[in-house]
Amino acid sequence: MSIIIDLNSDVGESFGAWTLGDDARVLDYVTSANIACGFHAGDPQVMLQTVRLAHDRDVAVGAHPGYPDLVGFGRRAMACSPQEVYAFCLYQIGALAAICQAEGVRLGHVKAHGALYNQSAKDVTIARALVQATRDAAPGLILLGLPGSRHETAARELGVPFAAEAFADRAYERDGSLVARSRAGSVLHDPQEVADRVVRMVREQTIETAEGASLHLHADSICVHGDNPAALAIVERVRQALDGAGVRVGPLRDVLSL
Amino acid sequence: MSIIIDLNSDVGESFGAWTLGDDARVLDYVTSANIACGFHAGDPQVMLQTVRLAHDRDVAVGAHPGYPDLVGFGRRAMACSPQEVYAFCLYQIGALAAICQAEGVRLGHVKAHGALYNQSAKDVTIARALVQATRDAAPGLILLGLPGSRHETAARELGVPFAAEAFADRAYERDGSLVARSRAGSVLHDPQEVADRVVRMVREQTIETAEGASLHLHADSICVHGDNPAALAIVERVRQALDGAGVRVGPLRDVLSL
Amino acid sequence: MSIIIDLNSDVGESFGAWTLGDDARVLDYVTSANIACGFHAGDPQVMLQTVRLAHDRDVAVGAHPGYPDLVGFGRRAMACSPQEVYAFCLYQIGALAAICQAEGVRLGHVKAHGALYNQSAKDVTIARALVQATRDAAPGLILLGLPGSRHETAARELGVPFAAEAFADRAYERDGSLVARSRAGSVLHDPQEVADRVVRMVREQTIETAEGASLHLHADSICVHGDNPAALAIVERVRQALDGAGVRVGPLRDVLSL
Amino acid sequence: MSIIIDLNSDVGESFGAWTLGDDARVLDYVTSANIACGFHAGDPQVMLQTVRLAHDRDVAVGAHPGYPDLVGFGRRAMACSPQEVYAFCLYQIGALAAICQAEGVRLGHVKAHGALYNQSAKDVTIARALVQATRDAAPGLILLGLPGSRHETAARELGVPFAAEAFADRAYERDGSLVARSRAGSVLHDPQEVADRVVRMVREQTIETAEGASLHLHADSICVHGDNPAALAIVERVRQALDGAGVRVGPLRDVLSL
Repeated sequence: MSIIIDLNSDVGESFGAWTLGDDARVLDYVTSANIACGFHAGDPQVMLQTVRLAHDRDVAVGAHPGYPDLVGFGRRAMACSPQEVYAFCLYQIGALAAICQAEGVRLGHVKAHGALYNQSAKDVTIARALVQATRDAAPGLILLGLPGSRHETAARELGVPFAAEAFADRAYERDGSLVARSRAGSVLHDPQEVADRVVRMVREQTIETAEGASLHLHADSICVHGDNPAALAIVERVRQALDGAGVRVGPLRDVLSL
Repeated sequence: MSIIIDLNSDVGESFGAWTLGDDARVLDYVTSANIACGFHAGDPQVMLQTVRLAHDRDVAVGAHPGYPDLVGFGRRAMACSPQEVYAFCLYQIGALAAICQAEGVRLGHVKAHGALYNQSAKDVTIARALVQATRDAAPGLILLGLPGSRHETAARELGVPFAAEAFADRAYERDGSLVARSRAGSVLHDPQEVADRVVRMVREQTIETAEGASLHLHADSICVHGDNPAALAIVERVRQALDGAGVRVGPLRDVLSL
Repeated sequence: MSIIIDLNSDVGESFGAWTLGDDARVLDYVTSANIACGFHAGDPQVMLQTVRLAHDRDVAVGAHPGYPDLVGFGRRAMACSPQEVYAFCLYQIGALAAICQAEGVRLGHVKAHGALYNQSAKDVTIARALVQATRDAAPGLILLGLPGSRHETAARELGVPFAAEAFADRAYERDGSLVARSRAGSVLHDPQEVADRVVRMVREQTIETAEGASLHLHADSICVHGDNPAALAIVERVRQALDGAGVRVGPLRDVLSL
Repeated sequence: MSIIIDLNSDVGESFGAWTLGDDARVLDYVTSANIACGFHAGDPQVMLQTVRLAHDRDVAVGAHPGYPDLVGFGRRAMACSPQEVYAFCLYQIGALAAICQAEGVRLGHVKAHGALYNQSAKDVTIARALVQATRDAAPGLILLGLPGSRHETAARELGVPFAAEAFADRAYERDGSLVARSRAGSVLHDPQEVADRVVRMVREQTIETAEGASLHLHADSICVHGDNPAALAIVERVRQALDGAGVRVGPLRDVLSL
């Protein structure tokens, strides 16, 4: 049996006159696009263009809802109630779903952005709001999130398909959490090192922690970035390494056998 | 054959801590709710609550997209390109569609708000953008708009079902346009006078113009307001007068025999 | 020596088409107006109109900056850095200062709004950012805040005049903090009871806690609300009671002998 | 007597996570910085950083207010009333003024942005609103605008110092207006050609029109751009050419002998 893994990236993060990232290029390498939905980044035209870019490359489209915080890029924790989170996730997913509908594209998954990702990973009431919106916005959406976190708990509870993601370029602690960005060595920059780690993650379901121990890690998808040339160099190398190792890079739906 | 007419009203125009209008009451009288979608008014929670209010009263739900101008309540003309209008209408309609989906409600129609309504009534490129978004966001949506305007032109061109609306409380010019709000007598305030006009509009398809002439006017729906007690008094009287005159007040879909 | 106290109220909280509170009436009773600055409420025209209303009634004008969260009315905690808080407070205070300049009014004080008030009361880094912005935006501004909190700490540290406020209609714990709104009895509704408490606060510098103990409390200003008829009834009664008790109700500058 | 000219550029147009232009570099060449004020671009932190960059280079600081249209970058015409324009210009100028005050910098001028620039150049009621805000926000501010337009009319009427700007890289019609961007040759791209034109503009107060005629043109300031490497190359060449021609490049205040 061949191994299959999804590669996902956050795209569509431009806004109005402002461009962020090189979506056309990163979408050449990944199989899932998490498209910003206008609250922390993205605007309706950017969303439409990004859906088209993904569709042209046969990349699966997902919604990437975030907090209503444009100036903070959705990275600042906000004390929103579960009711608020539910409603604004539904809103954002629906906005993208209509754009997909117009382009003849199936909306396939949802991944929370930034502080919403982090808060829903820790707080099950926020996670449930996110998962309920995922379940209610359209039938069959997959939640893409952090394995072992409240993302997974809430998705299992509510019967929403869950896909686990790992981070190509981040150092891990022994408990499977990410080393805080404030610590030295938390983010890896060498393309070959990252590519080697990803191949090992996928083939052996293990990763070496910051302290050198071996950690079991199951991932359905690997998150990569395309917001600068160095990030793109990593994506390219990761994709080549996976292809070279005989790993099939394919959409979440195939990984989860849905 | 009995006559049937729809009554529509703009609702869901509250935002965050700010309340506008008495939606629960106006929804007791109308058959179509045009729900603001967050760009000029409405927020995700208000949208959800308004869909529930409409659903509870068996009132048909429509999207009421507007310009991205919260402080101007979507009433200020903006020089948006057709591409911009298309994308932000798709976005807004989709956001409401997902909320409807979550509540088990069918989204039935689209009516533009404020300056977008006025500009799309006059400019066929804007009208086409609105109608294309209506057509592309979900199958079978009806465009509710101004008869004889570019709303109707574009809907006919693109094969989108069109419902014509008349205004209960506005004075008409001889050419069927509305008397400008800046002129005296442009808005009618007496509930009985408005109710009598509406009954005549519906039964005889005529209306008396500001100058006293008789004007032919076909309407599938009558637009009423609920944003203040005087407006509500008018809605109540109009509904009573229609019921009393044996006119069936029913949803757009029935009026258009869809 | 006569006793003197300031009465302050949050005003200018309307936005665009949405009206909140009856500013013209509450400004008949208070001596300090905390005017929202466009981030959580208020827009430039509302700010201008509110400065005029205050000026007409000889009410001192202060800035009421809040988090950039319109839909949440600035009530949701946000993880903003001190640098962010400093910059957006400076921005909001300056915006109001120019409107005051245009109207020939002296901007006199700053009071944080909602979640920014609460977070700066607890977190000294946020409090310092608020106080630095108060100090840097214009010479001589007073910080109005919670006595014994980080508001006071930071103001003393940075040499900014501090005015302590008490809440007319809130129950107090033994340590001088407010009883949480979620608890029964946390908000007082009887105008006479509130008025009696305020007179005692001012004359005896004590207040009865929720448990019936007597608590020492020094206040330079009493915060009252005007956002509904019941709140206005309380303001009116409080003002009458103070006038009747021979307490002079006057501006912060006089209370602090600046 | 030596000739003196100001060079101005629009800066501070980044927003949150999005960067636009290379402000640090363009500020090495110009003498006036028009800083975006948060409505169409810029946020409080960007404004603060931009004021510091300008201050470090001894570049004069001006406010660059625009329409409240972030997604449209203030480039879309909006039907705002003069009252709205007055209030939001006052607001934006004041916000920047407080940031200048905090940095010990004198705010010196105001230049409208994008669609507000264009609409106020044509419509005297909008121009007056802009000029009144300039006059009322702080004493002594200069309006920088289009010579012969309503900018100049309104500034003269209201006694506000007016500085005329010319565009280094734009082709001119015979009547002194700019060739529409939609026409071929409307924007000049060759640094040496632009530099030669600017030197001639400054020394001879003439410019060659698109049709080859010679047009009289008085400018107090030349507008240059820094939003891409090609634009920066032009700015650098223009500055070198002026320096080489013995023209003093200096602040507006010196140009106008204020």
